[in-house]
Amino acid sequence: MTHTTEADCRALDAADPLASLRDLFEIPDGAVYLDGNSLGALPRATAARVQQVIREEWGRDLIQSWNKAGWIDLPGRVGDKIARLVGAGAGQLVVADSTSVNLYKVLSAAMTLQARERPAARVIVSERDNFPTDLYIAKSIARQFGATLELLEADKIEQRLGADVAVLMLTQVNYRTGRLHDMARLTARAHEHGTLAVWDLCHTAGALPVDLLGSHADFAVGCGYKYLNGGPGAPAFVWAHPRHVDVFEQPLSGWMGHAAPFEFTTDYRPAAGIARYTCGTPAIVSLAALECGVDTLLAAEPLGGMAALRKKSIALTELFAALVREYCAGHGLEFASPADASTRGSQICLSHAQMGYAVVQALIARGVVGDFRAPDILRFGFTPLYTRYLDVWRAVCHLREVLESGEWRRPEFNRRHAVT
Amino acid sequence: MTHTTEADCRALDAADPLASLRDLFEIPDGAVYLDGNSLGALPRATAARVQQVIREEWGRDLIQSWNKAGWIDLPGRVGDKIARLVGAGAGQLVVADSTSVNLYKVLSAAMTLQARERPAARVIVSERDNFPTDLYIAKSIARQFGATLELLEADKIEQRLGADVAVLMLTQVNYRTGRLHDMARLTARAHEHGTLAVWDLCHTAGALPVDLLGSHADFAVGCGYKYLNGGPGAPAFVWAHPRHVDVFEQPLSGWMGHAAPFEFTTDYRPAAGIARYTCGTPAIVSLAALECGVDTLLAAEPLGGMAALRKKSIALTELFAALVREYCAGHGLEFASPADASTRGSQICLSHAQMGYAVVQALIARGVVGDFRAPDILRFGFTPLYTRYLDVWRAVCHLREVLESGEWRRPEFNRRHAVT
Repeated sequence: MTHTTEADCRALDAADPLASLRDLFEIPDGAVYLDGNSLGALPRATAARVQQVIREEWGRDLIQSWNKAGWIDLPGRVGDKIARLVGAGAGQLVVADSTSVNLYKVLSAAMTLQARERPAARVIVSERDNFPTDLYIAKSIARQFGATLELLEADKIEQRLGADVAVLMLTQVNYRTGRLHDMARLTARAHEHGTLAVWDLCHTAGALPVDLLGSHADFAVGCGYKYLNGGPGAPAFVWAHPRHVDVFEQPLSGWMGHAAPFEFTTDYRPAAGIARYTCGTPAIVSLAALECGVDTLLAAEPLGGMAALRKKSIALTELFAALVREYCAGHGLEFASPADASTRGSQICLSHAQMGYAVVQALIARGVVGDFRAPDILRFGFTPLYTRYLDVWRAVCHLREVLESGEWRRPEFNRRHAVT
Repeated sequence: MTHTTEADCRALDAADPLASLRDLFEIPDGAVYLDGNSLGALPRATAARVQQVIREEWGRDLIQSWNKAGWIDLPGRVGDKIARLVGAGAGQLVVADSTSVNLYKVLSAAMTLQARERPAARVIVSERDNFPTDLYIAKSIARQFGATLELLEADKIEQRLGADVAVLMLTQVNYRTGRLHDMARLTARAHEHGTLAVWDLCHTAGALPVDLLGSHADFAVGCGYKYLNGGPGAPAFVWAHPRHVDVFEQPLSGWMGHAAPFEFTTDYRPAAGIARYTCGTPAIVSLAALECGVDTLLAAEPLGGMAALRKKSIALTELFAALVREYCAGHGLEFASPADASTRGSQICLSHAQMGYAVVQALIARGVVGDFRAPDILRFGFTPLYTRYLDVWRAVCHLREVLESGEWRRPEFNRRHAVT
């Protein structure tokens, strides 16, 4: 067995056709940032663009920028760009609110449709280990519609589907384990029973190719601040399949979703198309920052786009897994993400109940930023736009040193923060 | 009768104890900006603060800024500052989402309470000319709770109150006419019948003193981008009286409203206090900008705070009204806002069915920025933080010239935009 070396990793970077994309980002010197799945790195263009929005569009042109600078069109314009990343058409996807709020909208729409057409279907099925906000919102919707939320292990979901299931709500890539659901297959199985499929793309959009139209999905939501690099708390997006979009209103019927908001009429008349899934006044500064983030992904289109990014993402995660097996064995760490890259998102998760939290803190102190997800997950995200093979090498070297030195036992790495 | 002169207005500015506050803003040279009630002007501190958030907190410190830069505390920290402007206590008010979304939360909470305690109360009462998004959201909530939304003229509301009314929902200052409701009196009348009072402070917060606790209001929401100067689409705020806040959950039960979001538990357990009215991940860049805007109002505290600002606001609107009467008579313009300043917000509205839109456009072309509100309202907002008496003088001079010259008849001022 030949050992992988730093030189091997440097050679992979030298041969990487996507290597130049890293120049689109401001990565702090010396940082090995493996947390782009929680907060994407800062695109180089963002600061100047936001200054322009603040100083020129807001400060100088003031209210007139709603027309002059096209603020009013931003939710749709950025939505169209995101649509290109997730297999949706122009005019089908819009940026608005947060993932949680958008999930509320689409679950309401889906449950309203089912209440009319299949009143006996009163169950929302999801994965027990889905991201909590999805479960909290689904529980709220279930209560509102007199339905129940049923949570299952990932591999029990398909067999549970049936005529009593109104909605199958899944996050395509599990936030904790990185397990990737087959959107096309599960949507097809759901549809066999008349069940609607709602997909959360938080850990997919910008990380791997998504084909919403090709998968015949019903609704989708996703987040702007992870792989889309939109900045902390960037607005989220929402998509409804064209076959559903004009069929109903969602309950957050704010004025921006009105067919003619500036007529200021007393009665709500929903806009045609996905615009009816917007609600209040859009957050322009955040939207402008999000557009810069999305543009970093569109810059990959001439280089092969999401398919090429996915190929590199797999190479990065495979390398990390191989190096961990090679250099970090014997410390009790286990792999919590799927071994098969085709069923895994752009992350590798290790687990260790006792030292998981402390190892992550010790790595952060060394400039290797991953995160910990309770109760026992060490999570490492590999954003193919800016992560180098050399970063993978360095991360594993530091992990090995943290483990072998026992450095993780230091008290300062074992004090829990409120947020990680 | 002696005429008011430009020299009189300059003398008023020279004697204005709040005049220095204008220096906190970037007002374009030569602009007479009378639209701070739609989009507040840019505070001088905002651009640099947002750069710091983007370059240092996001770009350099990345995910660690949730703790290190206190991002996680921003919704409450900025909320506490807004609380000081609206008569609420620390820890009672939080920044989140949009006004529309927040209204949905508090109307849900109020209707849930009433459904339990007073099931026969099935009507939401509001003003026919309330801002449309309020009516659209109220209609949605009414549908959801099997209730009806009843809309009345402003002066018919008090007599309509009764045991069948679950919620009285009012915007304290009417967006179109500037009419100011008496929050304390209407809330007291509502409470006599067991009705809950929900107040929208969009045109009040930062414009005039509000006393939520002293008025015994039940719930309130408001917007960050008007008199709070938070920037286009700035996040909004939400308040619940302490007697209600822990009683129920609101339906947008996102993870940030959880008692311990980073425990990632499957079941929703609402946070104590107003934090349960947050939902998804907070929009940090927009929140930082909003804080700069709110700080411009807190800077007035040593100078008398909201009471002093209200005094100046009344002086500005009274001067504008007097000058319009003096210099712009005979063109068919009518006053659409109350003549009595004590029942008026920080705006003066004129009306003219035929030329209203065109006159506003002609004024904008001259650098006097007000706005038009369909069908016939010329709206002029007077933000006491940065509007000078000289600005009032200049606005009326331009208005007079536009009227006397017939300039407003030009075709370019009569083509309607989608947004104004």
